[in-house]
Amino acid sequence: MNPLFQQMPVSIFERMSLAAAEHGAVNLGQGFPDFGWPEPLLDLAARLLREGSNQYAPSRGLPALREAICGFYAERQGLAVEPGHVTVTSGATEAIAAVLLSALATGDEAVIVAPAYDAYAPLIRQAGGRVREAALRAPDWRLDEAMLEAALSPATRLLVINNPHNPTGRLFDSEELSAAVAVARRHDLIILADEVWEEVVLCGRPFVSLAALAPERTIKVGSAGKIFSLTGWKIGWAIAPPALAGTIARAHQYLTFASPPNLQAAVAQGLARPEWLEAARADFLRARTRLAGGLEGAGYRLLPSEATYFQCVDLSGLGIAMDDMAFAEMAVREAGVAVIPLSPFYEGAAERGLVRLCFAKADATIDAGIAAMAQAR
Amino acid sequence: MNPLFQQMPVSIFERMSLAAAEHGAVNLGQGFPDFGWPEPLLDLAARLLREGSNQYAPSRGLPALREAICGFYAERQGLAVEPGHVTVTSGATEAIAAVLLSALATGDEAVIVAPAYDAYAPLIRQAGGRVREAALRAPDWRLDEAMLEAALSPATRLLVINNPHNPTGRLFDSEELSAAVAVARRHDLIILADEVWEEVVLCGRPFVSLAALAPERTIKVGSAGKIFSLTGWKIGWAIAPPALAGTIARAHQYLTFASPPNLQAAVAQGLARPEWLEAARADFLRARTRLAGGLEGAGYRLLPSEATYFQCVDLSGLGIAMDDMAFAEMAVREAGVAVIPLSPFYEGAAERGLVRLCFAKADATIDAGIAAMAQAR
Ligand SMILES: CSCCC(=O)C(=O)O
Ligand SMILES: CSCCC(=O)C(=O)O
Repeated sequence: MNPLFQQMPVSIFERMSLAAAEHGAVNLGQGFPDFGWPEPLLDLAARLLREGSNQYAPSRGLPALREAICGFYAERQGLAVEPGHVTVTSGATEAIAAVLLSALATGDEAVIVAPAYDAYAPLIRQAGGRVREAALRAPDWRLDEAMLEAALSPATRLLVINNPHNPTGRLFDSEELSAAVAVARRHDLIILADEVWEEVVLCGRPFVSLAALAPERTIKVGSAGKIFSLTGWKIGWAIAPPALAGTIARAHQYLTFASPPNLQAAVAQGLARPEWLEAARADFLRARTRLAGGLEGAGYRLLPSEATYFQCVDLSGLGIAMDDMAFAEMAVREAGVAVIPLSPFYEGAAERGLVRLCFAKADATIDAGIAAMAQAR
Repeated sequence: MNPLFQQMPVSIFERMSLAAAEHGAVNLGQGFPDFGWPEPLLDLAARLLREGSNQYAPSRGLPALREAICGFYAERQGLAVEPGHVTVTSGATEAIAAVLLSALATGDEAVIVAPAYDAYAPLIRQAGGRVREAALRAPDWRLDEAMLEAALSPATRLLVINNPHNPTGRLFDSEELSAAVAVARRHDLIILADEVWEEVVLCGRPFVSLAALAPERTIKVGSAGKIFSLTGWKIGWAIAPPALAGTIARAHQYLTFASPPNLQAAVAQGLARPEWLEAARADFLRARTRLAGGLEGAGYRLLPSEATYFQCVDLSGLGIAMDDMAFAEMAVREAGVAVIPLSPFYEGAAERGLVRLCFAKADATIDAGIAAMAQAR
């Protein structure tokens, strides 16, 4: 047995979703929305399932989807990327797996920025690599050059930057991103830019892609599930510089080979309709205001939420020392609400008094969540 | 960069499908059918897409699907497996990846049976393992104990048995399977039983699952895409003994996390309707007869095809020495038919005069393929 997976816990997302189901709790844990998807996209996908092919798509993805991805990013982010450099994957998770397994060789190190999405570290280790961690600190979560430099060693080959950042809800600004690019250029690192939340920016500041700032070294990962609020579809992609694109595609061909053609074709058409995304953003904003107001009314102290559909809560505002794991366990069992503690997203010294709540939920769900949170304190 | 993926060729399936498209050739290469799926299953999946959830499924799979898989195998193969030991994956390819990456540790060896499906070896190597090969020989493709024993070393931990066997079309008999089990028991090996072709048995002999013969050590991989002739759906699964099931599920959670809920729910309902599979088998049989008759009429010598929807052709029957790769390149470029050469499925000394043709095609496609094959000789 591989000791890496044998000793590994079940993902905190899965664990809290299962606990929510078991205890009949409101699920504000795992990030999936109750609304926000374009209804016409469902009609399209259903029609394509009946009328189109249900056999293997090309392994790198339907040509129409790869072209639509390039068109979408050209228009919205000014990127100049080519269909030949896109690999369509079974969700962004598979894209991250294909990139890490193909870009790292045994002994290579990769730097991740904690609190870090929980797939990065096990995949880096599965690739034979070593994990080094740069840790963001609450409440500012600022990324800077010194912090990244301190995490590097001569064996570092790759830097994972997730922006907008989950679980904090930070949108890094140009200064922070430029710092990351400067470090990557100085040490000739590949940047894995996990930008799945690029379309859920709620603070009014612009999103800037690392693929625009450092196209020569950035592998950009995106997600139709996040863009269209259809997390179950599991259509993602990796866009890489020419020298890396073929290697990623070859890793992908042995991880899943391809993804359902009707979903790919529907996403291709959806990407040509960015206006479909406006309504979702307005609804997310309303939902954030509702959850934030309710939590503050219940006496919780909130951190800023700039992007993603997550709101972090500072438990130290409760006046008693409260560990995030203990709070989350108690909240789901006794108060009836599932939240995500932040400490599992650190390998080193963790922030221990913060939990994350998902606000992309129907009003009634949010209200029930607020009531349960009021009980939990 | 990971040298494993950097030096790897594009999969022969993808390569021949792309060449077929480029040259406008009839595609009898990559294994996907033109018919055979139950139409009601498409209606169901389309309806579930409109009416059901499109958000993350549980990582291990929808409970209804895991139960349906157990029910299906209890009825058809006499297996006693539990939903808690099933992990639903994004196709059998991901199941194989999750099993190999989680079951092997650095330095472990795995034995594969050549000609072997092209994903096994790179995934074994990605897991840090070493590949050892037992080679089947044409025209009998018989598996025996001595051949497996000869491939073992003290570091061998796992044996991959694909039955029915692709690309040969062999259905191993009880004697051959018992030999494999005896070897696995003697050396305490895990058996990865890739049984995706279990429902495409056309020779009248019964299919016997290794999970029935050696339940204590067999990880069984299955595929809804193959069972229902919907290869694009990419819903597969791994069923493992209790001690291994959790580890596979944890590898899966970081490879793709989950698969589309509407497809999972539709497959769950389809598995309760095994009668839907009868018509497909009759159609495959008719198509095999049509292709085989045409190829023999064109002067080709055929190998037995017992299972899968593949027919192997022995080029030595042409009277001139003909290399399979050279034939396949010429056939797709000049004669207008894509076929799959067998030599890429060996790491060691290969059979070099055999190609594989897919007969799960519409009559007109088969006839065009026969005409092109007549031209190719
Ligand atoms: C794949 S489960 C995790 C979903 C997610 O992105 C989140 O909740 O942060
Ligand atoms: C995933 S592409 C290979 C399809 C297949 O099973 C075959 O052609 O043998």
